[in-house]
Amino acid sequence: MSSESVKDDCLAWAARDPSGVLSPYKFSRRYALGFPLKAGFRSLYAMNWLYLCISFFLCNRGPKVTWEVLFRALGKDDVSLKITHCGVCYADVIWSKNKHGDSRYPLVPGHEIAGIVKEVGSSVGNFKVGDHVGVGTYVDSCRECEYCNDRDEVSCEKGAIFTFNGIDADGSITRGGYSSHIIVHEAYCFRIPDGYPLASAAPLLCAGITVYNPMMRHKMNQPGKSLGVIGLGGLGHMAVKFGKAFGLKVTVLSTSISKKEEALCVLGADNFVITSDQEQMKALHKSLDFIIDTASGDHPFDPYMSLLKTAGVFVLVGFPSEVKFSPASLNIGMKTVSGSVTGGTRVTQEMLDFCAANKIYPKIEVIPIQYVNEALERMIKNDVKYRFVIDIESSLK
Amino acid sequence: MSSESVKDDCLAWAARDPSGVLSPYKFSRRYALGFPLKAGFRSLYAMNWLYLCISFFLCNRGPKVTWEVLFRALGKDDVSLKITHCGVCYADVIWSKNKHGDSRYPLVPGHEIAGIVKEVGSSVGNFKVGDHVGVGTYVDSCRECEYCNDRDEVSCEKGAIFTFNGIDADGSITRGGYSSHIIVHEAYCFRIPDGYPLASAAPLLCAGITVYNPMMRHKMNQPGKSLGVIGLGGLGHMAVKFGKAFGLKVTVLSTSISKKEEALCVLGADNFVITSDQEQMKALHKSLDFIIDTASGDHPFDPYMSLLKTAGVFVLVGFPSEVKFSPASLNIGMKTVSGSVTGGTRVTQEMLDFCAANKIYPKIEVIPIQYVNEALERMIKNDVKYRFVIDIESSLK
Repeated sequence: MSSESVKDDCLAWAARDPSGVLSPYKFSRRYALGFPLKAGFRSLYAMNWLYLCISFFLCNRGPKVTWEVLFRALGKDDVSLKITHCGVCYADVIWSKNKHGDSRYPLVPGHEIAGIVKEVGSSVGNFKVGDHVGVGTYVDSCRECEYCNDRDEVSCEKGAIFTFNGIDADGSITRGGYSSHIIVHEAYCFRIPDGYPLASAAPLLCAGITVYNPMMRHKMNQPGKSLGVIGLGGLGHMAVKFGKAFGLKVTVLSTSISKKEEALCVLGADNFVITSDQEQMKALHKSLDFIIDTASGDHPFDPYMSLLKTAGVFVLVGFPSEVKFSPASLNIGMKTVSGSVTGGTRVTQEMLDFCAANKIYPKIEVIPIQYVNEALERMIKNDVKYRFVIDIESSLK
Repeated sequence: MSSESVKDDCLAWAARDPSGVLSPYKFSRRYALGFPLKAGFRSLYAMNWLYLCISFFLCNRGPKVTWEVLFRALGKDDVSLKITHCGVCYADVIWSKNKHGDSRYPLVPGHEIAGIVKEVGSSVGNFKVGDHVGVGTYVDSCRECEYCNDRDEVSCEKGAIFTFNGIDADGSITRGGYSSHIIVHEAYCFRIPDGYPLASAAPLLCAGITVYNPMMRHKMNQPGKSLGVIGLGGLGHMAVKFGKAFGLKVTVLSTSISKKEEALCVLGADNFVITSDQEQMKALHKSLDFIIDTASGDHPFDPYMSLLKTAGVFVLVGFPSEVKFSPASLNIGMKTVSGSVTGGTRVTQEMLDFCAANKIYPKIEVIPIQYVNEALERMIKNDVKYRFVIDIESSLK
């Protein structure tokens, strides 16, 4: 591990405990010890006592050492990015607050990353300094299994390594995009098409691909077919935009009348239905070819499934506490319920190119990093239209 | 309505009330009144009072009249069948016992019908007297909608008319195959291939097509792929047979070790797993391309879904009281859960031809009609390998 690739200290905002409150964090490697000071006290403790003794000895003699190192060394296949923007995803809340019980602190969230290439490894062929590049929800995988070979790395047999809170190949903990820099193997970097705004590209890398991937897999790009979209947040509003770009008749299914005008007039949906209105729901009975359910809150499934035509497809991308329905809702009419999470690199690049070609931009609220805690709280309350994007470049200094 | 097509009284076994006990029933039309005595008192009551008065007048004067008429007149497109065999399906129990609250008594069950053509209408082009013909779970549909035009009549927009306990186009109640005769529009009759035993053909028309249809729809006919079959009854054992014919590696997932030998040695499954054995289930983790769930009893879904590979497909054809699973079981690995009920005439005829060509025969226990009540009770207890077939021709006299 050499220090050549790390020109500066790396600034980030991190959660330090399950309160999930984010605050500035500085990752540095002021001591070049010639061996890796692996991620955090937990890993360090597990390494060996010799390292620990040396570390404490140094710590007590020189200037304060921050034990975390954000960067791995730039490998021959790596791209070093200066991050300009990072989207705010609900996953950032989940792991900042340790909702799944597996958070590793200090935790730097963010897996909707856009930035500019600052340095490339000796074998990197697809990117050069100055390129606009995105990084999504994973930064590594085995690159050997059938899924990786098919560029569906999110399904890697050994498990993709997530962009934050994951264990990287070198044992370090991955740190996300609420940060000034990141180093990523080029296979997991995406080319952001020329002229496509970096701020707009960021949310595509989780919210966008999470709906685009199942839409393509279930052949929703058939003009004239009908799509219902449940939930109008970061994912849902992209489903509406993709649906319209595919030539679908799009109906937004919502619990709140307050979203009607924007759904129809701004996002371009064809129809807006309040799901508590029995008459409106009845009128939609057996009328939809597809439904994308982006709602994460608990809700019944049978009423929505009754809206599907024969052989209709219901795609779940949210994470309610459970999925429950009557077998008749599924069997009568040969319905399909399918799930999805993000997508592989092939389909992600395809989506970025599709968005650029079709001028599809997520609707975003750009914020400084200093606002991120309020943004997370507002996102929990669905108080965002429709994705926060942190302007890392301007505010993280 | 003329009487030309009805040469004999029609014998049948019918349930008269929700006890579900079947007993002989004779349907006759001794009075040719020149207008239809429509199906049952309920319909009669709804018709008009004049009919009712005439009927009662006749009833009280002459020999006893049975008001039900089993046959409609032979229409120009109709085929009149002498039924030789009828399979015993769990649906027969459901409606005999009024489990869905919509049974119309007297109720003649049976929708796995095989027989010999006795008469054809003037416009019938596909069948002639003496042909071996099958009738499945429906006997009519609109023949106008996109699904009917695609010969997927089970999905008819106006609803297919079920073979028993349905309301026929003329208002009469449809009567099933526990009967000596039936008249059916030729569009809903299937050609039983030459040499294929009529007794074996009968169960194909519900049990067989119920698994064959989704297997084809989900492209399970890919040699080398792997299939799990939950439940080894009428449907499950056919799924095993089709799976082997398709060149799949078939694993039977069962709660009972007692089925192991037969599953492996008689049905030809490649693997047998006791689902309560955690080690065996763990060994199957992420190994199956497809699962067909034929179990109607309640059971958890998450453990089975964990056996699917990425993008694996779980097909439900049973009717448990609910379907419930974790969204992670669906979303992680892009799983699909899909349902199905029987199939249209195109795929049903295809299945019959496939079975004949590949010498696939359901494993049946042939019984006389007089045994049917015990057979229904045994079926409820899963005490049948694997389908009862009533020898109507020999026993219903």
